Amino acid sequence: MNIQLLLTGNELMNGDVVDSNSAMVADELKQLGLQIQRKVTVGDAMDVLVEELQHLSKSADMLLVNGGLGPTTDDLTAEALARVCGVTLAEHPEARAHLQHWADTRGLVLNAANLKQAMLPAGARVVPNSRGTAVGFAMRHNNCEIICTPGVPHELRAMLNETLVPQLDGQVSEAQKLLLNRYHTFGQGESNLQQWIADKLPDFPADVELGFRAGAPTLEVKIQTPAQLADIHQQACQQLTALIGDYIVAQESGSLAATLIAELKRRNQTITFAESCTGGLISSMLTAEPGSSAVFEAGFITYANRIKSQLVGVNPADLEQHGAVSEPVVRQMAEGALAASGADYVAAVSGIAGPEGGSEEKPVGTVWIAWGCTGNIHTARLHYPYRRKMFQTMVAGAALDLVRREIMNIDSAPRYLKDRQHSVTKVR
Amino acid sequence: MNIQLLLTGNELMNGDVVDSNSAMVADELKQLGLQIQRKVTVGDAMDVLVEELQHLSKSADMLLVNGGLGPTTDDLTAEALARVCGVTLAEHPEARAHLQHWADTRGLVLNAANLKQAMLPAGARVVPNSRGTAVGFAMRHNNCEIICTPGVPHELRAMLNETLVPQLDGQVSEAQKLLLNRYHTFGQGESNLQQWIADKLPDFPADVELGFRAGAPTLEVKIQTPAQLADIHQQACQQLTALIGDYIVAQESGSLAATLIAELKRRNQTITFAESCTGGLISSMLTAEPGSSAVFEAGFITYANRIKSQLVGVNPADLEQHGAVSEPVVRQMAEGALAASGADYVAAVSGIAGPEGGSEEKPVGTVWIAWGCTGNIHTARLHYPYRRKMFQTMVAGAALDLVRREIMNIDSAPRYLKDRQHSVTKVR
Repeated sequence: MNIQLLLTGNELMNGDVVDSNSAMVADELKQLGLQIQRKVTVGDAMDVLVEELQHLSKSADMLLVNGGLGPTTDDLTAEALARVCGVTLAEHPEARAHLQHWADTRGLVLNAANLKQAMLPAGARVVPNSRGTAVGFAMRHNNCEIICTPGVPHELRAMLNETLVPQLDGQVSEAQKLLLNRYHTFGQGESNLQQWIADKLPDFPADVELGFRAGAPTLEVKIQTPAQLADIHQQACQQLTALIGDYIVAQESGSLAATLIAELKRRNQTITFAESCTGGLISSMLTAEPGSSAVFEAGFITYANRIKSQLVGVNPADLEQHGAVSEPVVRQMAEGALAASGADYVAAVSGIAGPEGGSEEKPVGTVWIAWGCTGNIHTARLHYPYRRKMFQTMVAGAALDLVRREIMNIDSAPRYLKDRQHSVTKVR
Repeated sequence: MNIQLLLTGNELMNGDVVDSNSAMVADELKQLGLQIQRKVTVGDAMDVLVEELQHLSKSADMLLVNGGLGPTTDDLTAEALARVCGVTLAEHPEARAHLQHWADTRGLVLNAANLKQAMLPAGARVVPNSRGTAVGFAMRHNNCEIICTPGVPHELRAMLNETLVPQLDGQVSEAQKLLLNRYHTFGQGESNLQQWIADKLPDFPADVELGFRAGAPTLEVKIQTPAQLADIHQQACQQLTALIGDYIVAQESGSLAATLIAELKRRNQTITFAESCTGGLISSMLTAEPGSSAVFEAGFITYANRIKSQLVGVNPADLEQHGAVSEPVVRQMAEGALAASGADYVAAVSGIAGPEGGSEEKPVGTVWIAWGCTGNIHTARLHYPYRRKMFQTMVAGAALDLVRREIMNIDSAPRYLKDRQHSVTKVR
């Protein structure tokens, strides 16, 4: 099946947005053994859209159009498809009812811009959108199935999962399909991990495809195998998890924070954080997950030195003598946060996020982390020489991962502790 | 100038890699007022590459090809371009010398795979690569300048900065360039804002292009005008800012948090937050910006009721009587955070992020916000009926925006306070 993708949006053309939708579509299709043959991206211009719809529908069996379904005048997909198919735009009852329901449940009144989203090419089939106002729609042209989808990523994902992939699944033979497992890892870079796997698993099955996708703070490792080789797939997953299991912080649609919450919940325990350089990001990552209130009661953002003393009892003399980015300070932050919150576990961080504030002894990117539980606080100095936001993200990831390892009793220290020249791990 | 982009690489088609190169190219071109008209991505297949080179070069003045310059057999760009131009591949002395120099400085011997990178279409001009082995190359075909560039991002960036952008700059007349202003707004949705502009500015100049890009929590409004119409551009910017000025929270590469930091800094004042349902996100948004330490010293993440009493002095009787999501509680959180931190300004939030925890009286998405300074605390109840992360993001945006309006003495209440059925604003 020749599948092509047409993405539309000025924001995709002018560098404002990095397209992640097409990777999402490719991922979903891959599980069915399907590949995108060509991907074209254009801005919000009617003549260009019309030309591409004509051009691509000539060679494609299925053309997925993404974006341009919004309520504003630069959302042109419906109009362009109507022109290509030689039909008019007409208010579609199903789309209108969807909009009305959306407005009713929110106590809103539909305006003219909203109502534009019910105007679809005459004869189009509606594709439901469970997450937003813009329904999708499909038409056949040039013997090609043209399916128009919303550009908002979570709306697209829902439409793929709920409608498009199940529909396609029925059209694809079992032999075409792929088995896919995803492992989210923390603590090793892509090239390191790839090299490690190559070195340690020389007999890794050749039919199994290994893929890596860098996220922040985690790195996703994908294992894909033709569906008829289920045993080999199973074996490859076992080999991989045996090698890198300690670094796997979540699987499939999970996350590091969700894993930590689940582990704490299972033990009926709680966690707290004392954050300096991350400024609330660690707590925010945890509380972004549903269910976090069962394991998290309090967080302390101690940005200024006097607040470190006031909120979590850091000794002002230690701040004076060692500086805020130091072992004694981060250890006292952790101990103070445990005492003040009554939590079972803690992570505390103090570092230099930059771009200002570095010194020769403590360059930008330096961070001290303390983690553990009452009577068993570990500390380490790490260095993440990245830009501010990436530094904060990696430090937050390390804090969550180190607590995860502690809670799950993972004995071996991760490479990101062992490999760092300056790292120190103490237990008292 | 019609500029198009052809990206090649199986990894771009199968979802393993998210393309960031095209956003980089677009960003660089934008400085010259140039835009990419069309972007096509294909896998590493000779017939497809040849077809696209032919097709795109017919409509483009300049075609940037990215990827496929590497040493392996699936790197096909040079061969494909040679076929399109009807020439053979030939070893190019300049490219060979570059490879030799690269190997010499590293004490390496060039192998056959390396030497493939010196084989370019006969007659091609070399574009230097200061960061890697693969030189770029350019040829004219179909009256189109075809320029082939490396897929490795830092090599592409160097080639753009050192050669391609300076060359283009000389070719672009002032008249071709575009004027571009960006305004980041908070508090109105895309359709509302567009409708409002259409209603209130019926004489908005037709030569000026208005673009909208939904971010979270802000919405970007862009104004673009051909450079020769500078007066009209100016006028359009004035019209727009006169109409929606209160909603503009930042311009160009700024952000709501950066604006708040700058306004506080200018007044030598500080801010603190007491967060329940946002779990650290408000503080995290502020501290993601450089310079935040000048205006932010402490943040209180008071997720559990007992912590609300312990850290920021909320009366347990009020928690019992009114619940955590209530006016008295959020007001006391704000007052308590001000007292505990010594900050000048504060925002406090308590709401139901979901998916659990809603009731008929207080459904998921309900939030109470308190903001202001000592002796002048405002409160409002808002409703953001979104999924958890989006709810948290919008609440954090509202908290920062309401403090921004307070600090900047913006008198009128924003529509998101006025329009909400349940909103209440009190001053005491």
